[in-house]
Amino acid sequence: MRSYAEYQALVESALVPALESLGPIPLKLREAMAYSLEAGGKRLRPVLLLAACECMGGNLEEALPFACALEMIHTYSLIHDDLPAMDNDDLRRGRPTNHKAFGEAVAILAGDGLLSAAMELMLRAAGEMDSLRGVRAAHCIARRCGISGMVAGQTVDVTEEGTEPTEEKVRYIHLHKTADLLTAPMEAGFHLACAKPEYIEAAVTYGQNLGLAFQMVDDLLDVEGSEAALGKKTGVDAALGKLTWVALRGTEGTRDDAARAITGAVEVIRRVPRDMRFFTDLAEGLLTRKN
Amino acid sequence: MRSYAEYQALVESALVPALESLGPIPLKLREAMAYSLEAGGKRLRPVLLLAACECMGGNLEEALPFACALEMIHTYSLIHDDLPAMDNDDLRRGRPTNHKAFGEAVAILAGDGLLSAAMELMLRAAGEMDSLRGVRAAHCIARRCGISGMVAGQTVDVTEEGTEPTEEKVRYIHLHKTADLLTAPMEAGFHLACAKPEYIEAAVTYGQNLGLAFQMVDDLLDVEGSEAALGKKTGVDAALGKLTWVALRGTEGTRDDAARAITGAVEVIRRVPRDMRFFTDLAEGLLTRKN
Repeated sequence: MRSYAEYQALVESALVPALESLGPIPLKLREAMAYSLEAGGKRLRPVLLLAACECMGGNLEEALPFACALEMIHTYSLIHDDLPAMDNDDLRRGRPTNHKAFGEAVAILAGDGLLSAAMELMLRAAGEMDSLRGVRAAHCIARRCGISGMVAGQTVDVTEEGTEPTEEKVRYIHLHKTADLLTAPMEAGFHLACAKPEYIEAAVTYGQNLGLAFQMVDDLLDVEGSEAALGKKTGVDAALGKLTWVALRGTEGTRDDAARAITGAVEVIRRVPRDMRFFTDLAEGLLTRKN
Repeated sequence: MRSYAEYQALVESALVPALESLGPIPLKLREAMAYSLEAGGKRLRPVLLLAACECMGGNLEEALPFACALEMIHTYSLIHDDLPAMDNDDLRRGRPTNHKAFGEAVAILAGDGLLSAAMELMLRAAGEMDSLRGVRAAHCIARRCGISGMVAGQTVDVTEEGTEPTEEKVRYIHLHKTADLLTAPMEAGFHLACAKPEYIEAAVTYGQNLGLAFQMVDDLLDVEGSEAALGKKTGVDAALGKLTWVALRGTEGTRDDAARAITGAVEVIRRVPRDMRFFTDLAEGLLTRKN
């Protein structure tokens, strides 16, 4: 097992080369995709995938295309989410959003391109393996980013804006909009390492709890965080009438629920009889997250 | 081998059930995706895939998810292409475009959802096969709809609007924006039937020629066609300054070039030692296309 920073550096240096390995790309499209891919961020999803695969004895190099694909999917979702017709954000990680920099048409296409590239990368990698583990991993990722996963969560987030927050709705949105894309790397990483079904199940529950806690902390940061540390405006959720955990429970209740979700994540992943400190440390570190 | 109408009916009845087989979908998202999927059209891409697979001895039922996936990808591209930031169309196949019916946010998500669903369908199907032929077929489709395929063509189509049409640019746009998604079903269908590489190569060349001819006829219809028969406005390309084959060569030159591309398609597919009448008839019928 490596450190978070080591996994992150691996992803960082592989992302744009992975795009370019897919063939000649029109200059403007390449620029727009690279602009958002290179905007940094914590690379949490791909790091989780690499760590999940490696802790179960899988091959790190083999997992890298899947990790890059996941970060591309996350990035496409941010680009589309920031569009004027969606959340209409001008700033992301301290820089103009993709459509502010490249125009809406190219931003839509850059998002479409990143999602397509993610699938292409995974399919190419899966086609070079001697078993179906790559197909299984890619299938998990496609399912969790799709119409009963992330896209479902985004849709409900957008269409229910301004309605009464109920636990059912807020939970659905958090689970699909956010947690599915943190569950996918756990599930896919374990599949790549050909882990036992019961361990995959634990990895999925860990991912869901981690994802819920992550989004709860995100909701808290929008209320209490620093714009400078976050690189984006705060107070946006309330202004848009977003169904957040804070709107449902208040800040104290949200902090309690996040702590409970983190405890759940830690307990379940400890059941996997391997060195799971990477995952327990990561979950426990969430509560002190500043950006 | 079946008739075009039989393949079309198969696709028609499988499309929405395929979506629904992927799990519970939020109502609004399901509605928006089904609205555009059910808008009809010729189902040319999935029909080509089914016919390509069957003519080479492949299994029709096994090919169906890939055919549906291809139609979903085509449909997503139309939804995004019609958006105000792109071609800004209000009408498609005689009905309001997706964003006119559901709003821009849901239309963007319906497009994202259809692309994700397509990948999920193919990956699920590929995971159930006893060889990598499904992965290979899915990879062809992902590549041809991606950043060096359809998305590349769309990008150049949008970013070069209003510039001088050169043969290099117009050819690039036609080849990627249109022909790649007619080549994909030939290539994927042949892969699903485990056809020999030399036959796959012929199928690809057929698809590219068919696609070029198809887009040339499309450009002609925008100048000479009937709005009633097409179900959309004509004269749009010239108004937007689109780089069309007609802008490059005029209507007579375009008709000649389309005929030449069709001859090329017919000649190359005849080299495959199977009954290829389906494909030669289809190519030859293109010139009399009215919608």
